[in-house]
Amino acid sequence: MRISELAERTDVPVHTLKFYLREGVLPPGRATSRTSADYGDEHVERVRLVRALVEHGGVGISGVRAIVGALESPPPSRHDLLGAAAAVIPTPAPRGPVDPEITGLLEELGWCTWSGAPALTALGDAVAAARAAGVPLDAATLRRYAAGMTEVAEADVDLALAAQDPAEAMRTVVVGTVLGDPVLVALRRLAQEAVSSRRQAAADAREDT
Amino acid sequence: MRISELAERTDVPVHTLKFYLREGVLPPGRATSRTSADYGDEHVERVRLVRALVEHGGVGISGVRAIVGALESPPPSRHDLLGAAAAVIPTPAPRGPVDPEITGLLEELGWCTWSGAPALTALGDAVAAARAAGVPLDAATLRRYAAGMTEVAEADVDLALAAQDPAEAMRTVVVGTVLGDPVLVALRRLAQEAVSSRRQAAADAREDT
Repeated sequence: MRISELAERTDVPVHTLKFYLREGVLPPGRATSRTSADYGDEHVERVRLVRALVEHGGVGISGVRAIVGALESPPPSRHDLLGAAAAVIPTPAPRGPVDPEITGLLEELGWCTWSGAPALTALGDAVAAARAAGVPLDAATLRRYAAGMTEVAEADVDLALAAQDPAEAMRTVVVGTVLGDPVLVALRRLAQEAVSSRRQAAADAREDT
Repeated sequence: MRISELAERTDVPVHTLKFYLREGVLPPGRATSRTSADYGDEHVERVRLVRALVEHGGVGISGVRAIVGALESPPPSRHDLLGAAAAVIPTPAPRGPVDPEITGLLEELGWCTWSGAPALTALGDAVAAARAAGVPLDAATLRRYAAGMTEVAEADVDLALAAQDPAEAMRTVVVGTVLGDPVLVALRRLAQEAVSSRRQAAADAREDT
């Protein structure tokens, strides 16, 4: 198909597709003349992936380039998949050394984490920011959050292991992590509502007896 | 203190503080002359809250205004706290009707959710975006995600119930939800790494025997 049809099928304007081509996140089509090229279904799929990462994952163009690069050259075995994935999954830039409380929490949980892991400094920063804003985020609550996220991570790893080949596993880990975050954020809000009304109903029942 | 000292103590430039005053997210100081005003510790605290919401919560200025307004006039009892909080916690704009699969999942979980809840449409959109990008997010995985987020929500509700008064409870729910998201996102990445190395170690042990 021509670029105009690719634009129509993906609902992304031609000038944005040309931007993706220039930035290297969309591979070039097969040249059919000096000024036009032919695009296939793999281009439609790629444009949808890029849009999803940008719109729903909040990933910048350089992050998209890193993710797309990783998807194109996955590690041959699954062993190093999460390491390779962690290197490209965007996390906020670290702002300082990791709080000993955080490293202590991870030790207590038995989570072996590379001390330079971006998620480790991101965790320290996020906890500090919440506390600075007056949220009483104590160690007990962090342990409960960690337990909940362990359940989520077990599902994530099972999903990656069920993949047919390393390329699909890599896509599941990287794209599933970035685009899974908004799913979890929405579920948290719905779960808060559910837990709160369940507790309220229990309290009302006690009052009635 | 003068506005220059407020800027120094919060590490936020004077022109940004003036923007916050104009936008109504920072209450005015006590006027000491026609051109200057006196600010107190409550202003330092408010500026830190606004910065945290903007920088770590990714909330826009109108979202900050809604949150700050809710914190200033919390509901008198805790009963309606989560409803009031849900109304101001920013969620992505809904893009369409909710997928029956999603409403079916919530029914199965026994989560009573108001069908117009923004988090409900946000969940449907996020699941659709992940699937469109090739993530094999099946119903079983969504149920496991929901279980993990229920643990998180139980901790959230306990934290809100432990608050001294409705004002503090409101702050805990609203600010704790927005600024807790990056904490959970970071924990998820660390948990993936931990679960993956635990599974790998178990697989290696089986091979050795």
